[in-house]
Amino acid sequence: MRALVYDGSKPRFEPRHPDPELAPGEAIIRPIAAGVCSTDLEISRGYMDYRGVLGHEFVGIVEKVHPDVDDKAKQLVGKRVVGSINCVCGKCDMCTRGLANHCRDRTVLGIAGRDGCFAERFSLPVKNLLAVPDTLDDDHAVFTEPLAAACNVMNMLRIESRPFVTVLGDGRLGLLTAQVLSKLNASVRVIGKHPDKLALCEKWGIKHRLLSDVSLRADQDVVVDCTGSASGLDTALKMVRPRGKVVLKTTVAEQKGVDLSPIVIHEIQLLGSRCGLFSDALAMLNGGEVDVVSLISRRVKFAESEKALATAAMPGTLKVLIEFE
Amino acid sequence: MRALVYDGSKPRFEPRHPDPELAPGEAIIRPIAAGVCSTDLEISRGYMDYRGVLGHEFVGIVEKVHPDVDDKAKQLVGKRVVGSINCVCGKCDMCTRGLANHCRDRTVLGIAGRDGCFAERFSLPVKNLLAVPDTLDDDHAVFTEPLAAACNVMNMLRIESRPFVTVLGDGRLGLLTAQVLSKLNASVRVIGKHPDKLALCEKWGIKHRLLSDVSLRADQDVVVDCTGSASGLDTALKMVRPRGKVVLKTTVAEQKGVDLSPIVIHEIQLLGSRCGLFSDALAMLNGGEVDVVSLISRRVKFAESEKALATAAMPGTLKVLIEFE
Repeated sequence: MRALVYDGSKPRFEPRHPDPELAPGEAIIRPIAAGVCSTDLEISRGYMDYRGVLGHEFVGIVEKVHPDVDDKAKQLVGKRVVGSINCVCGKCDMCTRGLANHCRDRTVLGIAGRDGCFAERFSLPVKNLLAVPDTLDDDHAVFTEPLAAACNVMNMLRIESRPFVTVLGDGRLGLLTAQVLSKLNASVRVIGKHPDKLALCEKWGIKHRLLSDVSLRADQDVVVDCTGSASGLDTALKMVRPRGKVVLKTTVAEQKGVDLSPIVIHEIQLLGSRCGLFSDALAMLNGGEVDVVSLISRRVKFAESEKALATAAMPGTLKVLIEFE
Repeated sequence: MRALVYDGSKPRFEPRHPDPELAPGEAIIRPIAAGVCSTDLEISRGYMDYRGVLGHEFVGIVEKVHPDVDDKAKQLVGKRVVGSINCVCGKCDMCTRGLANHCRDRTVLGIAGRDGCFAERFSLPVKNLLAVPDTLDDDHAVFTEPLAAACNVMNMLRIESRPFVTVLGDGRLGLLTAQVLSKLNASVRVIGKHPDKLALCEKWGIKHRLLSDVSLRADQDVVVDCTGSASGLDTALKMVRPRGKVVLKTTVAEQKGVDLSPIVIHEIQLLGSRCGLFSDALAMLNGGEVDVVSLISRRVKFAESEKALATAAMPGTLKVLIEFE
């Protein structure tokens, strides 16, 4: 089959990549559409030391399931699905204490130990799959994974009594996170570098400012770093008030020395946040609570997906979708 | 008067430093004993960009108070006191919301904008002072400030259901923090590099291991980094379990690039912790709940205090006390 593969040098479109094997408990999925995430870009710069098929955001159709799965899972064949990217053992200390996303033996779709979804076919455990409601189109459903990650920020924070919240970064994840947080009892603003991206906030009624227009006053109760850049944390630590919280979403392959002494001096809480609940995100998309379609900057045919990552890395671009035939 | 002063190059014993002025609301204090803290060492390596008299841990006698203070404060004259090091405005947003230690306009004794206690006399606001009970001797009282900082770790964590807690670092602060945490419903161990320092844990019935004997298994619920070294956080992030907590006590002048991606991948909470409540620490000392006297490694006469910092920086040394005549 054809697949977009990272071999340690750069992403390559391979015409003859081996088909995925159908393992017990798993399904083979044919993607309809896939999204390019900043993590894909970081991986193709060496992050996670990953080799294999890239991609983890998708909506697809279940082609087949392993015969050992239960009847309910068998009914997924032919259906549209999205799927959680963490494939877990169910037995380790993390799984048994309800932290399965942190499974000690996990593989992660297109990120760690498991070929991703930028391919004609890929596999996931059936327990990872959620059927997409008929009322939700592909352009929305493909945002389930990044929206779930944005929802996770909300779940980690417990927002109360209208705090001042800054979402730092006006990229894909920043704009999703800002939309989610703006539903809560919080005063949310987005700080970014791109007037055209910030214009979306205007449309959504979310406050926004250019980073260059803002003085770093250590007055925000919460700062969510969605910059995807090594300097983001540095800025966040200057924006947050003493005893405030910084949520770190950014993972970057190359990290410069960040001065962490403000964390101690100002007793800041730094909270790492990664994946979220797909069910929450799917419900939110189906309820029309967030605008994801405005985030689609470009559509690239799968056969031309080598250039999808380069496009996604360009400053003006939000979400790049890879469309499969 | 005589004072140990940092002028940007190295700590110098100055025979003719100007006496402190008696400002409204303040007291002049003559120290009896003062402790050398790692922060003093970091400051004399450039941390905080501080210039002036060093030192912030003391027990002393109030020599005089400004005539504008109330009758209760006037009764402190001639009494032994310890004193909170943050001198605050009482008016800014931090002070009015109960976060006075983070006052926007604060000075900090021997750390920021206010001459410290390694001098014949120094000043503090009377509201910062606590009388030392007659039942508590100077060797104990001088530990109030570092013990308060150790107690603050406990207050930030809310320890429940016997978590596995590692105190990383067997120095002054690590051994105080371990003693405080071991009073709680937690399984506490100290990980350090110095068998002679870890021997104190044996005496106190606290579990301990050499760092070289421990594998970094990401299995601790809480890790408190008291190493005072740039590599401490790196080790802590490898020891803590996914969704666990790392308390950062270490502030260092020079910070190397720490890989922060584990914070996001493992959704770790990093909590900065600085100063604590003096009243808690004083009560704990007076109740005999912690052994501080075993931490005293050396006593140096004030006139020879230039060498006190160098002594405190030696690997085998715990607390160095400066004794005043």
